[in-house]
Amino acid sequence: MTAVLADTEAFVATLRAQSRRYHSMHPFHRRMNEGLLGREQVQGWVANRFYYQANIPRKDGAILSNCPHPDVRRRWIRRIVDHDGTAPGEGGIEAWLRLGEAVGLPRAEVADERHVVPGVRFAVDAYVTFARTRPWVEAVASSLTELFAPDLMADRLAAFERHYTWIDPAGLAYFRARLTQAPRDSEHALEVVTQYCRTPAEQDAAVAALSFKNDVLWSMLDAIDSAYPDR
Amino acid sequence: MTAVLADTEAFVATLRAQSRRYHSMHPFHRRMNEGLLGREQVQGWVANRFYYQANIPRKDGAILSNCPHPDVRRRWIRRIVDHDGTAPGEGGIEAWLRLGEAVGLPRAEVADERHVVPGVRFAVDAYVTFARTRPWVEAVASSLTELFAPDLMADRLAAFERHYTWIDPAGLAYFRARLTQAPRDSEHALEVVTQYCRTPAEQDAAVAALSFKNDVLWSMLDAIDSAYPDR
Repeated sequence: MTAVLADTEAFVATLRAQSRRYHSMHPFHRRMNEGLLGREQVQGWVANRFYYQANIPRKDGAILSNCPHPDVRRRWIRRIVDHDGTAPGEGGIEAWLRLGEAVGLPRAEVADERHVVPGVRFAVDAYVTFARTRPWVEAVASSLTELFAPDLMADRLAAFERHYTWIDPAGLAYFRARLTQAPRDSEHALEVVTQYCRTPAEQDAAVAALSFKNDVLWSMLDAIDSAYPDR
Repeated sequence: MTAVLADTEAFVATLRAQSRRYHSMHPFHRRMNEGLLGREQVQGWVANRFYYQANIPRKDGAILSNCPHPDVRRRWIRRIVDHDGTAPGEGGIEAWLRLGEAVGLPRAEVADERHVVPGVRFAVDAYVTFARTRPWVEAVASSLTELFAPDLMADRLAAFERHYTWIDPAGLAYFRARLTQAPRDSEHALEVVTQYCRTPAEQDAAVAALSFKNDVLWSMLDAIDSAYPDR
């Protein structure tokens, strides 16, 4: 039992260490938080990141579909409700469309994904495909970037309010909501991953899944950085 | 516009006409409702049908994953909540386990699927695979057997209460819940299918999907009938 606990601690530490590769370190994200982006770059980031937001419930639907445990599904489903809302005008996707409006992008222009660049599409689609085709617990592990999200969200909120004063702060509601949702979600995901990944092979697969997710987020910023260069 | 409305009416009539192939017509189901089944046959039906119930949220998760419309997902997700419940001890899967207990099957014996015969597994797995791999609106159309379910549930409830008096009526809660859930669910599914299937090809695909679903339910009863013959 002591051995298992030790393994779990080392496993969680290895997962947490993936924070060093989180997209908060990406040059584009660093410049964003330093207030160095122009309006078009912020708009490009918002319009492209929408494709990620819009696909999150589809990724989570795949996890529900692949997971055979009602007790896991019963908590996981909350993520879909958070993103889709329970009524029109609610939820994270809607909040992101309002962020789009706050940065000067008409809703339709964000919703129809006309600004989404190929590299962003490829990365997000790879994430949804991963959730559909890999063992469900690996898809759960891939969500653990949420362990690192609260710090990023807090920094981003402060940066936006300080540097991009042309954005109506009401438009930043998505970031504020994630400050409380992400810790709740990552706590559940960590519980699930530590419960279901007990062998070294399972734990390695979980770490690889989280590493893959870091690649997804990083690649998105590579593509956005390339499409919206500094002028 | 008149032409479209006429098409929609004919389309809905064609969908409804699939009721003639619903599993309520299957010889095993007829014998069940006539009170002709022995205890082992009822137990066999309950234990095998559990595999279907347990997989419904996974089928619905696949629909969420494939459907790009938040407004559709927002209502569809209710089905998963109905089956999984919002807390341990709630929901349709739990209600079916209680039905198992009411017919004399220990929970563990139903939950571990030891009684599930290959033909039932194949049919249910085919249904989940259909939802994962076919266009989302076809998967929605396949759910339209719910149009026929309230009549079946009402007949089944009456038959069980009349003929199988050795079953505690409290164990029949699943059937009672479906009396109200199925009409609500089929109403939504019909709305979605008539909205998104406008061309003859799309409408044909929807009818084929519903026909496929009838095949799934019928095949399950074939396999159960074969495994639990009259003595």
